Amino acid sequence: MTARHDVLAIGNALVDVIAEAPASFLAERNIAKGSMRLIGADEAETLYAAMAQGREISGGSAANTVAGMAAMGAKPAFVGRVANDQLGTIFAHDIRAAGVDFTTAASVGTTPTGRCLIVVTPDGDRTMNTYLGACQELSEADLDAETVAAAQILYLEGYLWDPPVPRAAMKKAIAVARANGRKVAMTLSDVFCVEGHRADFRDLLESHVDLMFGNENEVCALYQTQNLDEAMAELAKHSAIAVVTRSSKGAVVLEGGRRHVVAAEPVARVLDTTGAGDLFAGGFMAAMVAGRSMPDCARAGCIAAAEVIGHFGARPEADLKALVAARLG
Amino acid sequence: MTARHDVLAIGNALVDVIAEAPASFLAERNIAKGSMRLIGADEAETLYAAMAQGREISGGSAANTVAGMAAMGAKPAFVGRVANDQLGTIFAHDIRAAGVDFTTAASVGTTPTGRCLIVVTPDGDRTMNTYLGACQELSEADLDAETVAAAQILYLEGYLWDPPVPRAAMKKAIAVARANGRKVAMTLSDVFCVEGHRADFRDLLESHVDLMFGNENEVCALYQTQNLDEAMAELAKHSAIAVVTRSSKGAVVLEGGRRHVVAAEPVARVLDTTGAGDLFAGGFMAAMVAGRSMPDCARAGCIAAAEVIGHFGARPEADLKALVAARLG
Repeated sequence: MTARHDVLAIGNALVDVIAEAPASFLAERNIAKGSMRLIGADEAETLYAAMAQGREISGGSAANTVAGMAAMGAKPAFVGRVANDQLGTIFAHDIRAAGVDFTTAASVGTTPTGRCLIVVTPDGDRTMNTYLGACQELSEADLDAETVAAAQILYLEGYLWDPPVPRAAMKKAIAVARANGRKVAMTLSDVFCVEGHRADFRDLLESHVDLMFGNENEVCALYQTQNLDEAMAELAKHSAIAVVTRSSKGAVVLEGGRRHVVAAEPVARVLDTTGAGDLFAGGFMAAMVAGRSMPDCARAGCIAAAEVIGHFGARPEADLKALVAARLG
Repeated sequence: MTARHDVLAIGNALVDVIAEAPASFLAERNIAKGSMRLIGADEAETLYAAMAQGREISGGSAANTVAGMAAMGAKPAFVGRVANDQLGTIFAHDIRAAGVDFTTAASVGTTPTGRCLIVVTPDGDRTMNTYLGACQELSEADLDAETVAAAQILYLEGYLWDPPVPRAAMKKAIAVARANGRKVAMTLSDVFCVEGHRADFRDLLESHVDLMFGNENEVCALYQTQNLDEAMAELAKHSAIAVVTRSSKGAVVLEGGRRHVVAAEPVARVLDTTGAGDLFAGGFMAAMVAGRSMPDCARAGCIAAAEVIGHFGARPEADLKALVAARLG
């Protein structure tokens, strides 16, 4: 069976609300700078009221990843839940306009579309406060088994392992993908995800996943160590390809006993780091489905990540396909 | 009576939906590049579906103007109508976060908050397609006469002269302001506004307005001439101060028989011209209430306009107060 999509991603369908603030804004509220945390509707309202004027740009980690893949010429699909409201309309419009198949029905209840309140500090660092809203209502019923079976890669957002109903849907999708000989990829997403689901994530890596993305902090958290080399030694024991992103230090690909080290792309000015990891994964997988080598996949990831941190918002603005072609040929 | 606000502005409460497109996108749809036009709900939906992924940033001409004034240290208020929906929440949040008093109640009907679908072409030019929505429901009942009477300047958006109910509200506001010895300022907004309301706008200038902003095309349309000098000769006959903006050619202030010519500020890269005129008016009036000379008011306008065309969106992002202080002292 020919793959209908290069990748089918399951993730949170969020609209980002991005505002700038000094680091003291976070300190005064005891919010850890650079982190992602989940907040409820009440806190979302209080925090939003305190934030500066913002800009709204569609986001969601896996959604950003597939938007990046589409910009590089791949054929992705996205599964995630919005509500039947204005933010949901914006999310659906934007992901389709990016060239991603998106057909998940909007929920009909009163829970609104999820949003991520992002505070960007003057150093370009982003601190994310996520109100999941309708995202949590994604269920098995939203997955079309044939579409999952027909996608070359199933890509899972670690963030969505937290709410139980979407987690069950992702487990089902893994079973379908594997039964059909498809690849399964995932991102560890965040240290809090790893802390909360360490046993599950280790089990996924051991037995169910072919490709895993994580940053230094996440892979260290996965193996409860402060030492990146120790964590990478553990990762290398698995048959899955593990890709460790290291911000300005580039990325390391661990593949069947081999280790590929790739430098980061230079960036003129880091304005907003939101989406760096998402776009890295997008660049990597777009290059992979195009048949490139592992080091070139990592380079494509670095190129896509460098583009997205040069502007506000986590969706690509430049012509990623041209950027990658110019750099990698 | 001490002025409670430096300016009270009445205008459209819009959220801008900004997406990039080649000029051919407009040509194929017979949309005049660089124009503003009003569209209905159906066309808004069709056009939005065809647009690329976007970013949502609060807008509205007079709202942008007062956001700019607040950024320069003035104390503005804004009167305009949103609906009780997510875009309305965004508009209200952003204008308050900008430091503008905004207390107009949201409408309770089914008409949604207005939005402006903005197509930005690679030259930075913006083409605006405005669905007014709840904006048109602004009425006399939304105006607090004491607040109008207590504001140093009443500022009116020409765009809002089009729908009849808000027009009546603005006429009432003019009467209150004048009865209380306050200044009345307005912007011609757009050639289509001038074409549609030429007699009214001439009458306003003749008898009711102390300060008028317009660009070259608008003032030429006001006097039905292709010749800017002819139009300026007509403008100079009135006691009102007339300020003519000329894009990269700067601005001309016509004041009691005198003519002050000011050059435009240099801009590294014009990314999106949305809001240039709005921020010019904001910079001008903020300097005026601070007691600056007419040429310095025009210079402050040029500085504020230059800032806003260097990024997407029509609200200031840089510290305008510091920018103006650095340039004008």
